Amino acid sequence: MMHRIILIICVLVQHHPFFCSGEVVTPKPIIVNGTYLNPELGKYHARLRTISRSCLDIKENFGVTTDGVYYLTTANGVMYQAFCDMTTAGGGWTLVASVHENNINGKCTVGDHWSSEQGSDPKRPDGERAWVNSATFGTAEGATSEDYKNPGYYDITADDVSVWHVPNDAQLQNWPSTAILRYHTETKFLTENGGSLYHLFRKYPVRSGEGECTNDNGPSVPVVYDTGDKDSTTKLYGPTLRDHFEPGFVTFRVFNEKKAVMAMCSGIKPTGCHAEHYCIGGVGNLEQCGDFTSLNELPATNSSKELTEAAVLIFYR
Amino acid sequence: MMHRIILIICVLVQHHPFFCSGEVVTPKPIIVNGTYLNPELGKYHARLRTISRSCLDIKENFGVTTDGVYYLTTANGVMYQAFCDMTTAGGGWTLVASVHENNINGKCTVGDHWSSEQGSDPKRPDGERAWVNSATFGTAEGATSEDYKNPGYYDITADDVSVWHVPNDAQLQNWPSTAILRYHTETKFLTENGGSLYHLFRKYPVRSGEGECTNDNGPSVPVVYDTGDKDSTTKLYGPTLRDHFEPGFVTFRVFNEKKAVMAMCSGIKPTGCHAEHYCIGGVGNLEQCGDFTSLNELPATNSSKELTEAAVLIFYR
Amino acid sequence: MMHRIILIICVLVQHHPFFCSGEVVTPKPIIVNGTYLNPELGKYHARLRTISRSCLDIKENFGVTTDGVYYLTTANGVMYQAFCDMTTAGGGWTLVASVHENNINGKCTVGDHWSSEQGSDPKRPDGERAWVNSATFGTAEGATSEDYKNPGYYDITADDVSVWHVPNDAQLQNWPSTAILRYHTETKFLTENGGSLYHLFRKYPVRSGEGECTNDNGPSVPVVYDTGDKDSTTKLYGPTLRDHFEPGFVTFRVFNEKKAVMAMCSGIKPTGCHAEHYCIGGVGNLEQCGDFTSLNELPATNSSKELTEAAVLIFYR
Repeated sequence: MMHRIILIICVLVQHHPFFCSGEVVTPKPIIVNGTYLNPELGKYHARLRTISRSCLDIKENFGVTTDGVYYLTTANGVMYQAFCDMTTAGGGWTLVASVHENNINGKCTVGDHWSSEQGSDPKRPDGERAWVNSATFGTAEGATSEDYKNPGYYDITADDVSVWHVPNDAQLQNWPSTAILRYHTETKFLTENGGSLYHLFRKYPVRSGEGECTNDNGPSVPVVYDTGDKDSTTKLYGPTLRDHFEPGFVTFRVFNEKKAVMAMCSGIKPTGCHAEHYCIGGVGNLEQCGDFTSLNELPATNSSKELTEAAVLIFYR
Repeated sequence: MMHRIILIICVLVQHHPFFCSGEVVTPKPIIVNGTYLNPELGKYHARLRTISRSCLDIKENFGVTTDGVYYLTTANGVMYQAFCDMTTAGGGWTLVASVHENNINGKCTVGDHWSSEQGSDPKRPDGERAWVNSATFGTAEGATSEDYKNPGYYDITADDVSVWHVPNDAQLQNWPSTAILRYHTETKFLTENGGSLYHLFRKYPVRSGEGECTNDNGPSVPVVYDTGDKDSTTKLYGPTLRDHFEPGFVTFRVFNEKKAVMAMCSGIKPTGCHAEHYCIGGVGNLEQCGDFTSLNELPATNSSKELTEAAVLIFYR
Repeated sequence: MMHRIILIICVLVQHHPFFCSGEVVTPKPIIVNGTYLNPELGKYHARLRTISRSCLDIKENFGVTTDGVYYLTTANGVMYQAFCDMTTAGGGWTLVASVHENNINGKCTVGDHWSSEQGSDPKRPDGERAWVNSATFGTAEGATSEDYKNPGYYDITADDVSVWHVPNDAQLQNWPSTAILRYHTETKFLTENGGSLYHLFRKYPVRSGEGECTNDNGPSVPVVYDTGDKDSTTKLYGPTLRDHFEPGFVTFRVFNEKKAVMAMCSGIKPTGCHAEHYCIGGVGNLEQCGDFTSLNELPATNSSKELTEAAVLIFYR
């Protein structure tokens, strides 16, 4: 009995060694009677316990089914926090990036991390190179308020993408309910393109002048809708352009008639050569440059405010 | 006695399981004889132990009375480090933001995160929207060298603010001793405005053209001085303007005669309509735009170098 | 024997208290039979175990000999991750900064954190002041894709520097093999200059107009080559300028004939007064401003693409 009591004591204070004579030494206990003295520390330890290379690993190895912010680590051991969608189509989606337009009228101005922050310059045909480099910016909770790119963008090896269009400045806890469009791919197209957009865009450079419409476009992948459908997708884009694309796809690395390049056409497959009006992440001449390129250049071709005032969140799985 | 010895062993190595037969297995111990093998790890664990939603929680729940950098977490579990003032007027103040002018002559140029980084643009009447979005920038230790905003700005629910004017590039350990002006409110004005400046400015948008001087000004709150007084506050501002405001207050969301908007007037309540010369975080026409707006536009209205070369640190409690 | 079994149990579950009656309580175990249930958590704990003020401390106190990303902490307790070179000349080198040119043709444009992001302005003779302030930017894994500065730059006290020229966008794991030039100093010159570049540049301000070529140049320190040699160093710079400098040194704070200032001349000691063509981190008139200043202003003076398309990584030891 006597040593039983000692055992309990020694275990209750298991975070600081203890001479069983009874005198406590530093550090202080963090748990007493199986309860964290600091509940926030308990929550932190619970989150840290599942640290993994991706949200998919967290789901598969730890059975996590709750959306939220989790700890991830790169192959090199760089730790970061990312939002995990653990519910859509089985879950396991890691938010790795967002494309946010902070100035729809600015053409490659400050804050256009996914195109160019220094205007259009023939000597910089691939702008800031964010699609193919290891620079990161923004934060998970700020992903609808500014451009966002975390280490997962280049570190995670994935099969598919999921894309959410979420109104600017929406708070993380409201993303799922406020998203105006959500879809994902199921073809494992990333696998045959290096396992990430980072590698896909090294294969299909986002460099203006390097290709022609429509011969040199990158992959166009059919999508499964999670919010919205083909009709609602079409209505988001400029009215006079709705016969220039086919809804139900996501397309990467597209050139327009002037050899300007766009990184991504969200929810559609271009059939015409005016990609600057319905694709994003564009670098080209002055009028065809910017995170949201020329999505509202002219009244006739203007996309809906719904689309231009929503950030494009990109997930991997 | 024999099991006593075993107990000591088993506890001393409590960070790596141990078969009491005696053979050690991974991981390695971090504590021996009640002392951290790595003192820096001990300090880290001590800091982590108090992780909370705010510095006030740290003070109240853990009795911390030492100024310094502590771990905080948002409601979503995003972890960050923030400076806590644990001594002023009872302590518990969280540094959530700083307004730093990196170019007093630039009017809404790069680095003006609290106004606009892209000049004055009628199509962007609220500039970068930093006062009301979830973007963050800067670091705790860099708060006097660049604009700073951490997740606490939007995540913490607080009653009052404290403001320090600290010379540019001063190091954290020297902030209290070098501050030229320090004051705090005690009216709990944040409580009736959503519990943070993030919510206050959603109620009183920092948007040019949306209001008139002086009808549409936001709250003006009396302050208690911790460094300086009403006289020293007055002397910080442009000599010819000293009858345009009343010292002893902090005021939020103020318009000038041209409908330019300023987010904050530090230490004063404007009585005139030239807020651009004594209020900060302004968006308006070209001459009335910038983190420090027009604080030294004209010799006669110039504020003191003391003021214009000091960062404005904003705390919540 | 009976209490022996109890001991084993109590230790195996040492991360959650345990009533030796046998019923488990929260939190969940992270280690079973001496093995981490989550290997990534094991790796994280292993890295955290060596948290120190510098990579040299990690090497000396924990015998670490593997290059990689480790946890560091500032005097104020701000935690960050940094790349440690644990092999070159005995190891213990902390990567604290990188100078990356994102637009070789831009003269002090956005992204020129080490010179000026707002063009050349006589009223801002020391530009962004990054060499002497506590602002930080970039990430360890992104150090070859954008300018990088971590808290170690101002927090670590060191004797010497090591410099690597690594091709833009190279991934961290490839830095050592792809570097085109690597060298380090052994004179302990930092010690007599405050123990860091942060303090050295407070002694020798990087401020245009404040000095003359060549009277007011800062320290020029002989280097030991780790990759390349004096000849390969010379060949990296503009052909017509190769008699304007002496290879085998690294020089800090240099003025040119027009009183423009450059922070660092990598691998060389200037003998002429055209530092803008072979030194970096420059602030001066419009043509002599930028992270890589005028390294390829004119065909005759152009440096090699090898040099201008590689980031300059700066280590302390």
